[in-house]
Formats: sequence, structure tokens, C-alpha cells
Amino acid sequence: MKGLWLENQNLTLRRDLPLPEPPTGEALVRVLRAGICNTDLELLRGYYPYQGVLGHEFVGVVERGPDRLLNRRVVGEINAACGRCRFCNSGQPTHCENRTVLGIVNRNGAFAEYLTLPAANLHAIPESVPTDAATFTEPLAAALEIQEQVRISEGDRVLVIGDGKLGQLVAQTLALTGCDLLAIGRHREKLANLEARGIAVGFADLATPGQFDLAVECTGNPEGFAIARRSLRPRGTLVLKSTYAGDLTFDASSLVVDEITLIGSRCGPFAPALDLLARDRVDVQSLIQAHYPLEDGLAAFDRAQTKGTLKVLLHMEDGV
Amino acid sequence: MKGLWLENQNLTLRRDLPLPEPPTGEALVRVLRAGICNTDLELLRGYYPYQGVLGHEFVGVVERGPDRLLNRRVVGEINAACGRCRFCNSGQPTHCENRTVLGIVNRNGAFAEYLTLPAANLHAIPESVPTDAATFTEPLAAALEIQEQVRISEGDRVLVIGDGKLGQLVAQTLALTGCDLLAIGRHREKLANLEARGIAVGFADLATPGQFDLAVECTGNPEGFAIARRSLRPRGTLVLKSTYAGDLTFDASSLVVDEITLIGSRCGPFAPALDLLARDRVDVQSLIQAHYPLEDGLAAFDRAQTKGTLKVLLHMEDGV
Repeated sequence: MKGLWLENQNLTLRRDLPLPEPPTGEALVRVLRAGICNTDLELLRGYYPYQGVLGHEFVGVVERGPDRLLNRRVVGEINAACGRCRFCNSGQPTHCENRTVLGIVNRNGAFAEYLTLPAANLHAIPESVPTDAATFTEPLAAALEIQEQVRISEGDRVLVIGDGKLGQLVAQTLALTGCDLLAIGRHREKLANLEARGIAVGFADLATPGQFDLAVECTGNPEGFAIARRSLRPRGTLVLKSTYAGDLTFDASSLVVDEITLIGSRCGPFAPALDLLARDRVDVQSLIQAHYPLEDGLAAFDRAQTKGTLKVLLHMEDGV
Repeated sequence: MKGLWLENQNLTLRRDLPLPEPPTGEALVRVLRAGICNTDLELLRGYYPYQGVLGHEFVGVVERGPDRLLNRRVVGEINAACGRCRFCNSGQPTHCENRTVLGIVNRNGAFAEYLTLPAANLHAIPESVPTDAATFTEPLAAALEIQEQVRISEGDRVLVIGDGKLGQLVAQTLALTGCDLLAIGRHREKLANLEARGIAVGFADLATPGQFDLAVECTGNPEGFAIARRSLRPRGTLVLKSTYAGDLTFDASSLVVDEITLIGSRCGPFAPALDLLARDRVDVQSLIQAHYPLEDGLAAFDRAQTKGTLKVLLHMEDGV
């Protein structure tokens, strides 16, 4: 089969990949569509060691698997857990000590015609959710993880830093909590997306220092972190939603004096994400910037790497 | 009156200080005893700008103030709040936007014969608590702040890093929660203090990576932070209890991937600290390394700055 293969920071379109054979408990999924995420770009830049098929945001159809899923469109949780370690046993499979991660850690990913995942990871997609929209389930779930970690009350002053793909989903999901939200970024047209949904937006100068209860850093750069930190009131909470290239340096004493809480946030719950998509409570269509067939996957990556690009989708069917 | 005066990183014993005149709402306190804290040493090194009488850990007798306190031994909360800002109005006076802080920010401190503080800051000391022991109320309250911020359950695996004054108080207070505690440090004799109280102790090599639910960093150095970070399981919590000289650099991506929570922790509640002292639930006597009269305050500071020294107490009465 065809697939985008990463090896030594080199991405190639391979046509010689074997059709994967699902081990016991796993399903064979024919991929329909997949989204390129910043993590894919970081893997390509060699920030983490990985060799194999890239891709972890996808929609597919189950060709072999349990009856409840057979021939249905599905999305899949990306952490394949062992089911036996202390984290699996305590209901935290996303932190399984022996996990593989779709297209990220020791498991071939979604930028190919087929993938396999544990059947337990797969969620059937409600009929009403278009396939394009459903490719956003994984990043939308990651945005919802914030609400699993932090109690957000109506009227809380919340700042989202970053108007990229993740920042947009984070802002939209936080807006649903009734908090007093401000989303800041650097791109007028991206901020306009959020403004059209009734969210207050602006550039960094709007983020008054010392005023926010919660700041969510979605840029992955040190400047975004500095803005987030500065914006918080004492005893405020800073959520780190992006990974960073290299180390971050900050004034730890001010964290102590102001009793700030810093929370790292990663993968989130799929069911509420699908539910939001089914009820049309978030807009993901406006985040789609381009469509490419898998055949043109390398061009799709070039596009995704162009500064300011939102979501690029790959279509595994021939022709788009 | 006499007092230890800090100006331009220079500490002097002055004899010409005016007796302070308590403003409305404040009490005049004759200081009996005071403890030298690492924060005092940091102020002396110029980490923060401050000019005035140093000192914030003290026991005194109220000479002018409300009847309930008159002629009683007292300890005092160090943040003098405005009572009007949003933090005061929300019950967080230690974060008052307009606060002065005894011996630290815009308020003459305790290394003098007299001080003033708002009467509301003062707590009468139970008869059974010796004056030496009561000087530990403030740092003991700071240790208890951790339990205000983090829910600690019986059996939680907790690591305390640092066997200095603060680390010792933190370890002793955490031990009372019934958690599965390990305290690590570099000094055999200091660790022996804790071991004598039934606390498991050791050097850094005992802190198995990825095993602890909670790590409390009490060293204030980057190496202590690195040990704390490394020791945590995914979704673990790192409490920063010390201030740091300069910036701290760390791998923020690993914080995101492991969904670590980092919490800055400062001043804590005095009432439960006094209660622990009254019920003799913590041992502070063994932390006292030396006594000096105020007259020899500069020598006391020399001693406090000697590596490995625990608590040095100043006696304001003549002769010790």
C-alpha cells in the first residue's frame, strides 16, 4: 500500500508498504482522510525520534474488527495501551508506560491507505458529522482535556494565546464554558474566524498583565509562554497545551511568590469531542486550508509547513 | 532602638532607629526572639530590592494594641494587606496587590527591638509553646501551605528534596498526612533528624525516576528541581517551595507529554501551625543551631550563611 514514511528526518511516499495485519484485539481500518498536525511537522524536524508512517488525526472505515464497528466510519484514540500497567489499571491509558502512539511512538500512523489500532480505541462517528469535520476529533479532544484538568467557572477571565489550529479549537471549546474569554494571536484573518463566533480577540497588547485567572499557551514558543505568565493574577493557572522545541527558561521565583499553577496538557476525551461536532457546537470547516490526495502527500507537507497555514487534509481515496 | 538595617546589600547594626509608632489598626510589638531565614540571606545578596530592618520570623509581646493581645506573646503573619483590593475581598490577603511584607517589602522587620504589624495579623501563642519553638510558626505555616494547595491522600508516594530548615519542616508536616514519604538531602546528620522521627530518608539516588505522585522542591537550586521533575510519574505534581536565584530552565515538552502540574507555594496558615506546635506534633528544637543576642547580629548572619547551618535565632533581650 501507499504511505508517507518518515526515516532520518526524510519523508517519502512509499508504494511498497505491506498491508498491516491487525494483531488480536486490533481492527484493520481503511483510512479515508487525515489531518497534518504540528506534531507531524516537529517529528519531521527530528524533535523526537520516530521511524514509520506519520499521521495520527484520521477518519477511516473498519474493514476487519468487531461487529459494532464493521463498515462504520471511525476515529481513533492514538495511545495504544498495554492494559496491564499501573496507569492502565488506574484508568489513565493515555499515560500507559508501555504505550505505542499512532504515527508518533513505535506504531505506524494514518498517512497511509490502511492502519491498525486496538478496537477499544475506535469510536464510531455519528452520521451527521462530515468526514472532513471528524478528522478534527483528536485535536478537539486535546482542547477539551483542559476542562478535564482545570475547573472553569462562568465569568472566569481566560486568555488563549495563539490563533493557529490548536488555539482556535481551544478558544472555541473554552467559549462554551461561559468564561470571560480573550483570544490573542498575530493573524488578523485567523482571529476573524473566532470573532465571527462571538469570541473577543486581539493582539498581544490586549492581554493586560496580572488580570487573568487562566491562560492557555497554544503557540509553543517562549514568547507565548512569557505573555501567558505575565497575564496571570496571583494564584492563576497556566496551561501548557503545546510542545516546545528545546528548553524553556523562566523566573521560577515569581511562580513561587505568586503561587502560580502550571499544568501540562496533552490528549483528551474523544466522546465529548464527537458530541460537540455532532451538535455543531464548534466550527472546524473554517480551519481547513487545503486538500491533497495522499499521492501528493509531500506537496501537502510543504503547504502545511508554510507559515500561517491552518489545517491541511490528506485524502486517501484517489482524486479529491 | 537597635536593629539590623539593610541598605545596598550592606547589613549594619544601628542603634539610632526610632521606636516605631503604630498607625491605626496596628499594634506595637516588643520583639523577644527572631529567626534568620534563607530569604533574609537572599535579600542580603541583593536578589530583591529592599531597604530597612530585616527579619520576618519572630515572637514578641504586644505593648500597645487590642485588649485580647495586650501583654501576650504573639507571632505575626508577615503580609500586611490593604483590605480593599480584589485579593483581600476574595479572602486571599497574602496576595494583596498593595501589601507590605514584614522585613521584605516596604515594612521594617523583626531584627530590632520593636516592630509594628496590623493587629489582625497577630496570633497569641498558646502557653505550652516555648518562645524558641514559636519562632518557627511562620516557616511551619509555609510548609502547611502545600496541604492547602494539593490534596494528599494516605499512601500517596511523596518526595521531599532538601534537608535544610524548610525541607525538614515540609517533611515533618507531610509525614502527618499518612503519605508514603521519602525525604532526600545531602547531609547525613540533618537526615538523621528526620529519620529519628520515623521518616524514610536517603540521598538523591533513592529517588527512583517516574515513581512519585508528589515532589516538593525545597532546595532552591536547579539540581533539586531536576531531581523533583525526574521523580514524578505522569500526571504527578511538583511543588516549588523555594525561591531561585536567577531563572530556571527546563524541558517544557516533557511537562506537556506527562501532563505534570507545577505549583508555586509561599506563605501559609498560622493557626494550624501553632496548633501543631502546641500539640508537639513537629520537632523544631533540633533545627536550632545557634543563639545570638541582637547585639551580635552580624556574627549571627555570618553563622547563618555558613553552608549547612540550620536555624540561627536572635535574642532581643540583652544576654542569651
